[in-house]
Amino acid sequence: MASIAAQTLFKLFFTLFSAFFIEINGEFSRQSINMSTKRMEKITRLHFYFHDIADGKHPTAMQIIRIPNKTATSFGTTFMVDDPLTEKPKPTSKLVGRAQGIYAFASQSDLWLLMVMSFAFSEGIYNGSAISILGQNAVLDAVREMSIVRGSGIFRFARGYAL
Amino acid sequence: MASIAAQTLFKLFFTLFSAFFIEINGEFSRQSINMSTKRMEKITRLHFYFHDIADGKHPTAMQIIRIPNKTATSFGTTFMVDDPLTEKPKPTSKLVGRAQGIYAFASQSDLWLLMVMSFAFSEGIYNGSAISILGQNAVLDAVREMSIVRGSGIFRFARGYAL
Amino acid sequence: MASIAAQTLFKLFFTLFSAFFIEINGEFSRQSINMSTKRMEKITRLHFYFHDIADGKHPTAMQIIRIPNKTATSFGTTFMVDDPLTEKPKPTSKLVGRAQGIYAFASQSDLWLLMVMSFAFSEGIYNGSAISILGQNAVLDAVREMSIVRGSGIFRFARGYAL
Repeated sequence: MASIAAQTLFKLFFTLFSAFFIEINGEFSRQSINMSTKRMEKITRLHFYFHDIADGKHPTAMQIIRIPNKTATSFGTTFMVDDPLTEKPKPTSKLVGRAQGIYAFASQSDLWLLMVMSFAFSEGIYNGSAISILGQNAVLDAVREMSIVRGSGIFRFARGYAL
Repeated sequence: MASIAAQTLFKLFFTLFSAFFIEINGEFSRQSINMSTKRMEKITRLHFYFHDIADGKHPTAMQIIRIPNKTATSFGTTFMVDDPLTEKPKPTSKLVGRAQGIYAFASQSDLWLLMVMSFAFSEGIYNGSAISILGQNAVLDAVREMSIVRGSGIFRFARGYAL
Repeated sequence: MASIAAQTLFKLFFTLFSAFFIEINGEFSRQSINMSTKRMEKITRLHFYFHDIADGKHPTAMQIIRIPNKTATSFGTTFMVDDPLTEKPKPTSKLVGRAQGIYAFASQSDLWLLMVMSFAFSEGIYNGSAISILGQNAVLDAVREMSIVRGSGIFRFARGYAL
C-alpha cells in the first residue's frame, strides 16, 4: 500500500503587540483603561515543513466526513489531522511542532481547502505556544496565503499570515 | 421540487493596517522590532448579496452532518457551502466572489448558526483576496453581526465585522 | 444513568479598540482613511464557569462525528455544544451566557481539543455581545489558554485570551 505524503513549506510572519495590562480581580467583569500612544511591535518569522500523510501505515490525517457521491473537487469531504511540522523538508528532520485540526474541501469548482487548525510549537522558546489558522488553502497554487487568526503563549495577541 | 434560496445582504466594514515590516531571512525563526507611533488605517466598506441554495437542481449547500433525531432548532446539523456573492439582490447579477465553508446549527433553543467561512472575492482590486469569518449568525434577526477574523491578499491584517 | 459534567473556570481578558470610522454609502466598495496616533484601549476581564454535560437527561453536548475504531485520544471525535456559562461554579447559579459551537479531539498523542466556538453573553451590558474562540484546549492541563479571535456587539474589534 502506497503512502501519500503531501509536504508543504510554511512561512509564518507575525507581529507581537506589547501592551501593558492592568487587571483588577473581581466579580464577573471589571474594566480598566490603557492609553498607549507608542506601540512596540516585534516581528517574528518562522518557517517549517508541514507533512500530511493520508494513507499508509501511520497516517496523520483521518477522514471524518465521507460524501457518498464524491465530485471532482471532493466538495464536503473533511479530514481531521495531527501533522508533524519539521525544520527541513525530510520528515525525519527535527520536529518543531504539530498542526492539529480540520481541513475540508470547500469548493464546487476548485481544489480549495478550508483550514481550521492550531499550530502548536515545541521547539526552543516557542515550546508551548500555538497559532490558530482559519482560511482557504488553494492546494494547487504555488503561493498560498493563510490567515493567522490568533496565537497563545508567546504568540498571544500575535497577528500575521502564513504563505 | 422547489428550490429554497436564502438571500442575505452582507455589509462588511474593515480596517487595513499599514505597517512597515523588516524581514530577515534565516533558519526556523528570526525576529525584528518595528516601532510605530503613527498608524494609518484605511477603512473599506463592501456590500454584496449572499445566495445560499439548499435544494433544487444546483444546490450551493451540501448537508455534511445529519442528526438522526432532529430537534426544532436542528441542533448539530451541519452544511458545507460554496455560495455565490453578487452585487445586486438578483442571483444573476454580477458575481463579486464566493463564500466557502461550514455553517452549523449550534443552539438548542434558537435558530442560530455557527459560521466558519472564507469569503473569496473576484471583483476588481479585490480579486484574489479573502476574508475569514467565525461567529454566530442569528438567522431570524433583522441585524446580524459576524466577526471578520482575518483576511488575506489586500485584506491581510484586516479586521472588521459583517452585518 | 450517570451524568458526566465537566466544569471549567474561564477567565477572559480582552481589549477594546476605540477608533473613529468614517463610512460613505455607495456601491460594492468605498474606502476612507483614518489617522489615529493615539489609541485608547479598554481592558475588560470576565470570569465565569463553563458547564459541559455529555450525558444524562439534559445533555448540553451532542456527538456529531463518531469514529468507528476509537483510539486512546479519541482522535477525530467531534461534538456540537450549547453549554451554559454561569457566574459561580454551581450550575444553578446565575446564567451569564452560552458557549455554542464545536469541539473536536485533534491529537493522536494527547487529550487536546480543537475548539471553534462562540461565547454569547446575556448578562447586563454584555447582553447580545459575543466572542469567537478558535484554538486548542489541553483538557488535562491546569492552565489552559485559548485565543479570542474576534467579538461582536460591544466586543467588536476586541482581542484577548481565555485561560
